[in-house]
Amino acid sequence: MKMLINVPETVVPDALRGMAAAHPELTVDVERRVIVRRDAPVAGKVGLVSGGGSGHEPLHGGFVGPGMLDAACPGEIFTSPVPDQMVRAAAAVDSGAGVLFIVKNYTGDVLNFNMAAELAEDEGIQVASVLVNDDVAVTDSLYTAGRRGTGATLFVEKIAGAAAEQGAPLERVEAIARRVNEASRSFGVALAACTTPAKGSPTFDLPAGELELGVGIHGEPGRERRAMMTSGEIADFAVQAVLEDLRPGGPVLVLVNGAGGTPLLELYGFNAEVHRALRERGVPVARTLVGNYVTSLDMAGATVTLCLVDDEMLRLYDAPVQTPGLRWGR
Amino acid sequence: MKMLINVPETVVPDALRGMAAAHPELTVDVERRVIVRRDAPVAGKVGLVSGGGSGHEPLHGGFVGPGMLDAACPGEIFTSPVPDQMVRAAAAVDSGAGVLFIVKNYTGDVLNFNMAAELAEDEGIQVASVLVNDDVAVTDSLYTAGRRGTGATLFVEKIAGAAAEQGAPLERVEAIARRVNEASRSFGVALAACTTPAKGSPTFDLPAGELELGVGIHGEPGRERRAMMTSGEIADFAVQAVLEDLRPGGPVLVLVNGAGGTPLLELYGFNAEVHRALRERGVPVARTLVGNYVTSLDMAGATVTLCLVDDEMLRLYDAPVQTPGLRWGR
Repeated sequence: MKMLINVPETVVPDALRGMAAAHPELTVDVERRVIVRRDAPVAGKVGLVSGGGSGHEPLHGGFVGPGMLDAACPGEIFTSPVPDQMVRAAAAVDSGAGVLFIVKNYTGDVLNFNMAAELAEDEGIQVASVLVNDDVAVTDSLYTAGRRGTGATLFVEKIAGAAAEQGAPLERVEAIARRVNEASRSFGVALAACTTPAKGSPTFDLPAGELELGVGIHGEPGRERRAMMTSGEIADFAVQAVLEDLRPGGPVLVLVNGAGGTPLLELYGFNAEVHRALRERGVPVARTLVGNYVTSLDMAGATVTLCLVDDEMLRLYDAPVQTPGLRWGR
Repeated sequence: MKMLINVPETVVPDALRGMAAAHPELTVDVERRVIVRRDAPVAGKVGLVSGGGSGHEPLHGGFVGPGMLDAACPGEIFTSPVPDQMVRAAAAVDSGAGVLFIVKNYTGDVLNFNMAAELAEDEGIQVASVLVNDDVAVTDSLYTAGRRGTGATLFVEKIAGAAAEQGAPLERVEAIARRVNEASRSFGVALAACTTPAKGSPTFDLPAGELELGVGIHGEPGRERRAMMTSGEIADFAVQAVLEDLRPGGPVLVLVNGAGGTPLLELYGFNAEVHRALRERGVPVARTLVGNYVTSLDMAGATVTLCLVDDEMLRLYDAPVQTPGLRWGR
């Protein structure tokens, strides 16, 4: 498997150097692996910090900027960052108003963010944490106890980010982040495995003519393998799986997220089928986002995330955001 | 090769239905295959129309919106749209101030846009055209006489789009579009071929351990094949190839564009090497864009585009843009 890299050992710092070169609005500490918005700490503002293994770009570093995260800590590929990164990030963004850690539910991330929260509080930083666990495919998995955290991370970071940008205090930002996670569910499929630089070959074996229903964002096994399905059949399966766990009484945000290797043309076609599946089940759609946001290197496939929104969440979702990976204006 | 599609025959209309569902700010005519910004025609504004084969998303349909294109005409995969689409698009966006066709230099596109220009003028629409031909890899190719049009299309559409949005008359918008094209050069590499839905297998054969230097955006042959190179070596080769044809006396815009199948993590790492290669050659960088903008379905690889900017071009590049694929605010 060929890759556009120098050597596998430097993929993460090389990418951070490239982010620094492309985004002067961010402060990128390549050595210590912390990405911070340049104007941090913003006076009176709650700081939002997230992080996780690399390989899911633009998540999380690409979501640092006004209206979303204040800092992100990238780990090695598919490997949790270490507490030291998180403490540095917290210190860099704390204005005195406290810091919210947004943690995807993987065992390593949870342990390290917990330890970082204790260390940061020892340094006098007030820290709250919210766990993202939206993936309905399986309970317990290769790297997880409980449900995995996937696409809902984008909604949590966007909506809580807007609340923080507008000056909400820590307990309020934490509460809304928790509400967004509780209102969100995801289901993903893989058509082809991803290849990590270190391994150099596909991380799992997916035979020709089969797909993995309920795959995790590191290629962890899902619910079952089946003979290849059409875009319409996959949309029905994914939407049904989500709606069995989330009963919308109102409009939803829709994220049709590419795993990285699936062309945008196909993602848009899949979105048409997701909308049809929702329409047939009587679920109204408030907003839709289609693209590669929470990726798994070059994995082929897609994830559907639905978030049941109220007026306040929708207003915060629509608020301006200026990050490398997600931006919209006034 | 598995794809997230229903059947190959409906990939383009399925994607257009998905675009319509995701983007209420666009008018998408799925049957006639024209994507128009919803508020078109904008009184007194020159209309910008582009188009080309599908499979390069977000180009062109994803660049329709305030500050960029007024309309786009998607053809079948890697196939020129027909004149009828272009005439409809021109009619939909002409406010009386005239229309600029932005045409990538492929034989089918050039023929069809020329015919459409004549037909539109018969209908009383003033039409000017600008040809994009930035790819320095080869002269004449599988679908082209002369140089191919690739990444510079984004700079032409963005900068001319800003000029039109600010009320510049047709001859001025045409002149600046031409200037941007003349100031831009590109060079691309492929690590793995793309697969079209109709064929269902890779469009060309690229042996393990080799890359194609100078590949076209449909997988057309480039200059040569070599044993796999590092990201740094590829950056040196691509930057050198561009600079042999473009002699900057000032700052450049940089586009590090993914072919579709290469992870964003790798594109950022490659960007670090492109910046290093430019620094070593004394070329200052004004702005950098890294991501999948002019893709070739799931092809693995990347293109480097440089555009030598003056103050006016940079001001227009920085102007607000609100499209599905490219957006930044005030």
